[in-house]
Amino acid sequence: MPSPATLAGPVNSQNSSDGSARKTHRVEMFSDAVLAIAITLPIVDLHAPEVPEGGSLLQGYLKLSAGYQAYALSFVVIGLYWAHSHFSGKIIRKTDHVFNLLTLVFLALVSITPFPSRPLVEHWNDAVNLHTAASVYTGVLAAPALAWLARWGYAVAAGLLDPRLTQAYVRRVTRKYAWTAVVAVLGCGLALLVNGKLGFVVSLLVVLSYLLAPIAPQYRPGQEPADELEEPDEAPVQAH
Amino acid sequence: MPSPATLAGPVNSQNSSDGSARKTHRVEMFSDAVLAIAITLPIVDLHAPEVPEGGSLLQGYLKLSAGYQAYALSFVVIGLYWAHSHFSGKIIRKTDHVFNLLTLVFLALVSITPFPSRPLVEHWNDAVNLHTAASVYTGVLAAPALAWLARWGYAVAAGLLDPRLTQAYVRRVTRKYAWTAVVAVLGCGLALLVNGKLGFVVSLLVVLSYLLAPIAPQYRPGQEPADELEEPDEAPVQAH
Amino acid sequence: MPSPATLAGPVNSQNSSDGSARKTHRVEMFSDAVLAIAITLPIVDLHAPEVPEGGSLLQGYLKLSAGYQAYALSFVVIGLYWAHSHFSGKIIRKTDHVFNLLTLVFLALVSITPFPSRPLVEHWNDAVNLHTAASVYTGVLAAPALAWLARWGYAVAAGLLDPRLTQAYVRRVTRKYAWTAVVAVLGCGLALLVNGKLGFVVSLLVVLSYLLAPIAPQYRPGQEPADELEEPDEAPVQAH
Amino acid sequence: MPSPATLAGPVNSQNSSDGSARKTHRVEMFSDAVLAIAITLPIVDLHAPEVPEGGSLLQGYLKLSAGYQAYALSFVVIGLYWAHSHFSGKIIRKTDHVFNLLTLVFLALVSITPFPSRPLVEHWNDAVNLHTAASVYTGVLAAPALAWLARWGYAVAAGLLDPRLTQAYVRRVTRKYAWTAVVAVLGCGLALLVNGKLGFVVSLLVVLSYLLAPIAPQYRPGQEPADELEEPDEAPVQAH
Repeated sequence: MPSPATLAGPVNSQNSSDGSARKTHRVEMFSDAVLAIAITLPIVDLHAPEVPEGGSLLQGYLKLSAGYQAYALSFVVIGLYWAHSHFSGKIIRKTDHVFNLLTLVFLALVSITPFPSRPLVEHWNDAVNLHTAASVYTGVLAAPALAWLARWGYAVAAGLLDPRLTQAYVRRVTRKYAWTAVVAVLGCGLALLVNGKLGFVVSLLVVLSYLLAPIAPQYRPGQEPADELEEPDEAPVQAH
Repeated sequence: MPSPATLAGPVNSQNSSDGSARKTHRVEMFSDAVLAIAITLPIVDLHAPEVPEGGSLLQGYLKLSAGYQAYALSFVVIGLYWAHSHFSGKIIRKTDHVFNLLTLVFLALVSITPFPSRPLVEHWNDAVNLHTAASVYTGVLAAPALAWLARWGYAVAAGLLDPRLTQAYVRRVTRKYAWTAVVAVLGCGLALLVNGKLGFVVSLLVVLSYLLAPIAPQYRPGQEPADELEEPDEAPVQAH
Repeated sequence: MPSPATLAGPVNSQNSSDGSARKTHRVEMFSDAVLAIAITLPIVDLHAPEVPEGGSLLQGYLKLSAGYQAYALSFVVIGLYWAHSHFSGKIIRKTDHVFNLLTLVFLALVSITPFPSRPLVEHWNDAVNLHTAASVYTGVLAAPALAWLARWGYAVAAGLLDPRLTQAYVRRVTRKYAWTAVVAVLGCGLALLVNGKLGFVVSLLVVLSYLLAPIAPQYRPGQEPADELEEPDEAPVQAH
Repeated sequence: MPSPATLAGPVNSQNSSDGSARKTHRVEMFSDAVLAIAITLPIVDLHAPEVPEGGSLLQGYLKLSAGYQAYALSFVVIGLYWAHSHFSGKIIRKTDHVFNLLTLVFLALVSITPFPSRPLVEHWNDAVNLHTAASVYTGVLAAPALAWLARWGYAVAAGLLDPRLTQAYVRRVTRKYAWTAVVAVLGCGLALLVNGKLGFVVSLLVVLSYLLAPIAPQYRPGQEPADELEEPDEAPVQAH
């Protein structure tokens, strides 16, 4: 297995030369729109409670609790991806066609994560089907983690990052994303081969680790941004 | 209970130093997208009217009136939050990771406010279940008010506001948001312990108070914006 | 009835002084998001065709034709509102709290126009219920036309327009929007009191008149924009 | 049939003079929002799996496979249109009323492409109904390809492109879009008249050809953009 440092490759060694490079505004906008929809769509499944025959509205509400839990779980997963894709805009300077395609793959995968969350909640205490529910859910969580890593790896290799970042910083971020993908795949493997609940807990822990702030960017000496709000596509590109 | 003035803390005393600070453009964009979806999703529940056996289309439309009322109520609640989050962009200069997470919590909570609005309308004259319907609805209204206060309190404490605003102004806004949260919680308490309709009316009044324009910003002498359309992240930051 | 010229009032006589003025970027973004959702949500009702017992998939598709027609009709209505709200950004320089609220009212009303379009299509040849279907639909079309007029009238009165536009131009636009609202209300009146199909045709014609390009802006002599792509909030404000 | 070169017409010969010209920011934003919704709406149809009587959750998941395949297919189609409309922003300098209307037509057509994807997947091995399923799907794929060509042709004819592009480049792009439309119509014709699977494969191949990066822009000598991230509406317009 190549070390994450190798994976990061020589920073800025290549430039996207296919003429499709643009600032990241629009890919951020589209990602935000897709993530916003994916994060709110599960509300459609929060159907109005029905008063059961001879029962009360309260019982109707309580019956829907699996729906709320699935909504909360999905919001955490997609919300944390959004928060870290928000940070990406600070360190990625431009996009190109391949980066757009990898972003689409990532979005397609993250958008379906709410779908198997409800079966997981509903079958949490169901000895027969928990194995399936947890395997599918952890698998669906591992997929966008892998796509995120691929997208980042491409951004590094194609020179899409802010060229002022240090190589050491880029390697640290690569390592973090690689470990995330490894643990997410491990969670899925555990759910499949060992124990559904264990696999889910491992997968959830790696998601929750993203509650921590992203690793603060480190810039090459003399190339620090003018101020903390400068966007990378506003900065002058220096000769090397 | 600390006074709102204490809660506001020393303005600009801290700077977000985790390297995740950015202009507010993208968090505004994502919020707008989520609020836009949350405000329009209830339309999905406005199913086409069915002509009842031996009845007319008009009867079919009238049967759906609870749906329209719930849609109108939800539009007012989310719309007013949007109008005031629009104003936030004028006084908040930057965002960081924690502010993004608090924004996500706020969005998750405000997005589910349409869900229990329809049961409230449907059970308004139902002596048995109004208590549940009003308690759930006022509770669901109080939650984003608390999240909004937490988000604002963090923005103040972390120095995310436009540093040119006066401390007196920031304290006034904090007091307003704190009172809103207090009254919203009170409305929920009244619905739960005293009377459903009373609790709902109190909660609705505090929502409707946001029809009034936000408190006009006050700037430190000599630090007024160049003109009324200057965004805070365009302004030069002055030394203290 | 006051003439439209009176309605337009003295241009720039007032400034929004409540401190909530901002550039129009965010209100345009939110409007776009709401309109984008409203225009696409009817697709949710395009359920997959079912093959009828002993029938073919083609028959299943044909049975859904009311759905396609309702989708097309809704797309035309909301699409034309979008195209003209796109133009607004060229002549409206800023927004404030009241303009935001009026925008919300407009969006709430335009977002429900798809809802009664399908009953109209389904009952087009139903002598009993066409009256109801056409009255509801033309009423739902008249509502956003009135809200649009109110929003424009406020923008004029509160000095939100580009101050370089001539008074004659502003009056022409006001007259156009006033006539639109008058004819839309007339269409609803005709559907209610005379004939459903006639009322619908009148209402549809006024919608289709918006296929024509908006009235080209006219600027005061010596105050023309630097070039055709200059946004009004980028222009320097001249003293009077 | 006119050659694509003729279709492209004299570049920059006309200017949109109806006063509705604006930068492309907002039309890009609206397109992104509509495409983001269209690409995620099929998730609504991914209903939670139901455990069949005496069966397992796994069987429930497997029964839904047509849904996943239809989702994947739709994501590819709309995603590739998004990636190429992302590129458009690099070579189209401005929009006007007619371009907005043509964009709406394109969006209306591309938004319904997910709808017949599921019947196609479900009837893939159904000798009776595959003909209908494939004919409808390939027809629904051909429609946005034609609208895209019309929109591009208008942009060329109305002088909306970046005026610094060479005529040869514009002709190459026109030829590419024209061929795409021709092959998409051919795919539909094949499905209708010869064989459903063959027609679908031809239509899919032309979609997948858009995985390749767009043709890199070529600029007139001495008019190259200052750097690869310059947006066309930021560039000074040179006299001819």
